[in-house]
Amino acid sequence: MSIASRNSARRILILGGDGFCGWPTALHLSDAGYDVTIVDNLSRRMIDVELEVESLTPIRPMSERLAAWAEVSGREIGFHRFDVARNYQRMVNLLLDFEPDAIVHFAEQRAAPYSMKSAAHKRYTVDNNVGATHSLLAALVESGIDAHVVHLGTMGVYGYGSAGMKIPEGYLKVHVETEAGAMATDEILYPAHPGSVYHLTKTQDQLTFAFYNRNDGIRVTDLHQGIVWGTQTEQTARDERLINRFDYDGDYGTVLNRFLMQAAIGYPLTVHGTGGQTRAFIHIQDTVRCIELAIGNPPAAGERVRILNQMTETHRVRDLADRVAALTGAPIDYLPNPRVEAAENDLHVANDTLIQLGLRPTTLDTGLFTEVTDIAARFAHRADTRRIVCRSAWRADRRTEPTTTVTTAPPAASTPV
Amino acid sequence: MSIASRNSARRILILGGDGFCGWPTALHLSDAGYDVTIVDNLSRRMIDVELEVESLTPIRPMSERLAAWAEVSGREIGFHRFDVARNYQRMVNLLLDFEPDAIVHFAEQRAAPYSMKSAAHKRYTVDNNVGATHSLLAALVESGIDAHVVHLGTMGVYGYGSAGMKIPEGYLKVHVETEAGAMATDEILYPAHPGSVYHLTKTQDQLTFAFYNRNDGIRVTDLHQGIVWGTQTEQTARDERLINRFDYDGDYGTVLNRFLMQAAIGYPLTVHGTGGQTRAFIHIQDTVRCIELAIGNPPAAGERVRILNQMTETHRVRDLADRVAALTGAPIDYLPNPRVEAAENDLHVANDTLIQLGLRPTTLDTGLFTEVTDIAARFAHRADTRRIVCRSAWRADRRTEPTTTVTTAPPAASTPV
Repeated sequence: MSIASRNSARRILILGGDGFCGWPTALHLSDAGYDVTIVDNLSRRMIDVELEVESLTPIRPMSERLAAWAEVSGREIGFHRFDVARNYQRMVNLLLDFEPDAIVHFAEQRAAPYSMKSAAHKRYTVDNNVGATHSLLAALVESGIDAHVVHLGTMGVYGYGSAGMKIPEGYLKVHVETEAGAMATDEILYPAHPGSVYHLTKTQDQLTFAFYNRNDGIRVTDLHQGIVWGTQTEQTARDERLINRFDYDGDYGTVLNRFLMQAAIGYPLTVHGTGGQTRAFIHIQDTVRCIELAIGNPPAAGERVRILNQMTETHRVRDLADRVAALTGAPIDYLPNPRVEAAENDLHVANDTLIQLGLRPTTLDTGLFTEVTDIAARFAHRADTRRIVCRSAWRADRRTEPTTTVTTAPPAASTPV
Repeated sequence: MSIASRNSARRILILGGDGFCGWPTALHLSDAGYDVTIVDNLSRRMIDVELEVESLTPIRPMSERLAAWAEVSGREIGFHRFDVARNYQRMVNLLLDFEPDAIVHFAEQRAAPYSMKSAAHKRYTVDNNVGATHSLLAALVESGIDAHVVHLGTMGVYGYGSAGMKIPEGYLKVHVETEAGAMATDEILYPAHPGSVYHLTKTQDQLTFAFYNRNDGIRVTDLHQGIVWGTQTEQTARDERLINRFDYDGDYGTVLNRFLMQAAIGYPLTVHGTGGQTRAFIHIQDTVRCIELAIGNPPAAGERVRILNQMTETHRVRDLADRVAALTGAPIDYLPNPRVEAAENDLHVANDTLIQLGLRPTTLDTGLFTEVTDIAARFAHRADTRRIVCRSAWRADRRTEPTTTVTTAPPAASTPV
């Protein structure tokens, strides 16, 4: 029996359902029996055009994806192309029309390097991400639809220094001195330490959620996700027309997938800085399961924003590189770090809630590396190795090479939708 | 000797220099010897058009204001009309051209009730306020201009419940338990508790400042201001063409000024809820002095965001009403509270830094009430008493009367600038 059949949430809206996490989530939930509708403005594909790069895997246009899924599964997924941050009235109309029980919100620009590329990219990321989250919540209030919002946040909101603490799930118990000299105890939103403009927007989202939750009773689960690796899920692997995107470029490629792809095509593994950065990870198959678990376990009416750490393990970047190198014989290339961050950090993270809800983690298993390297090897002919190095820099003094003479710009707001 | 002559900050850009606090600040700094240039898109005047209300005082168009100041003082103030949130390139060009030493940032929608009026007003407030602050910081990074940003924040970012604590100046010392069971001490940004979408944007601004301060070394002073009362300053009183604006309507009027105006025109004092809300206050004359003190004492290079509480005293709203009633014989009208907030709260606030820097507070003095009531009585014929009641509500269930059939909308983004 699927989880969906055991709970009452039936209609799910997926904002950003064309992306790396959004697409497999849409298929997983559709497969689990939910009635799924996607909203996406295709901004991620447009950014590929801007960056002159393509998914290593040959992802199909949305209409072909949806037709293939209907053919393979016998299930329909709805699709609306509009911009959640800007096309406010379309969102209100869709809420009133579709009456979703839950809304999975991926409709944000998700790459930290892209968010630091230029002033235009910083401003696009803020306008898009802060605007999308806020417009969604304002639309829920206006429409009166009581849907559970499941938002994809990031472990990065916590920052990567925790003074010997295990990072809790969103809320931190603190003791403060009162005027009378006594100690008072309070539980607060974990202090934000964003490391890029992208991460900044996710910390701003947290405040938006907290306000609308308190003022209007909007029910929210905020999933603070680790770095996703892997490519395919049970559903995206069913037909090549359903294949998930695979980003390997310096802006959108995530670290472990980049290593695996680099090894597969015979390119040195690119470690930025010492590689002493410890990060949290999760496999794409677990991402989609976690989202289903979050949907199946909504907060009660009046409950504060529920924050879950959606990660399964932590690793140092250089340890990952060593592991991939040992397995494949690939050399490691230590490059200057374009980010302004600590060279080394520890990271201990609580992820009890999703485990208690039933997640059985897909931990880093070199067996699973094969899936990724197989995909990478198969589509190696599509790789443009000029796009592998990260050209975005956190500050002008972190730029490793002159930028190309092409000035790129984020998707125009004027694209008709 | 003026403070300006004792320090090196000479060129000051004032964003939002046409508003209730911005205009007197521009005149005060110009009078103190600074070279002042104003940026304003006149949005506050356009909102008056939308709300079908006018400043009780007959404020003059910007060109007349500036000509009058030049005539009275012999000093020129520059003026550029554009939208700081949207006209990014104009901001970059102005920074490179004017090379300001400090930038006073008032370019935000400042009324909590207005920010809660409708979804369009919520979205306008977020887009405008978060966008203006972020665009300014991105423009400083791109231009490479090392100007000190002095931002007008609000005491409201702290919320109004402090568990017996004296609210510190921005940063809170907390003790947390480590994994080993020991206690670690940290100083964190005071946890945000915004009470409206307007306040939400100011808490989001704090995160933007912290990020750009840490990543790019932008020097910022964030002034968490109390509720401003009074109308005129030494400079705005010099010539009637320089008169400051006086808002008395339910959205933009601040509580004490509303009471004083209501008393002057024979309207019952409007207390929302029990009047047990304790708030922090500051006189407009002290506002402009505090900003000069902040400019004269910039943070050092590499220093974290400096946060000062810009208020001089706290009062319960009903005590203020009683005081004005006792003085004038005005009756008090207790109305339903359109806000979602605690009925009663205490408030203890640290304001040591501005006092140490030399502020001599203009505390609540019934003598000063006369200035306001004189102005109100003089312009009573301009009052539209239908605009006194607050029609904005924090939630649909807090609406006290049906809204009028006129649907208002915030200033169009398309106004050519």
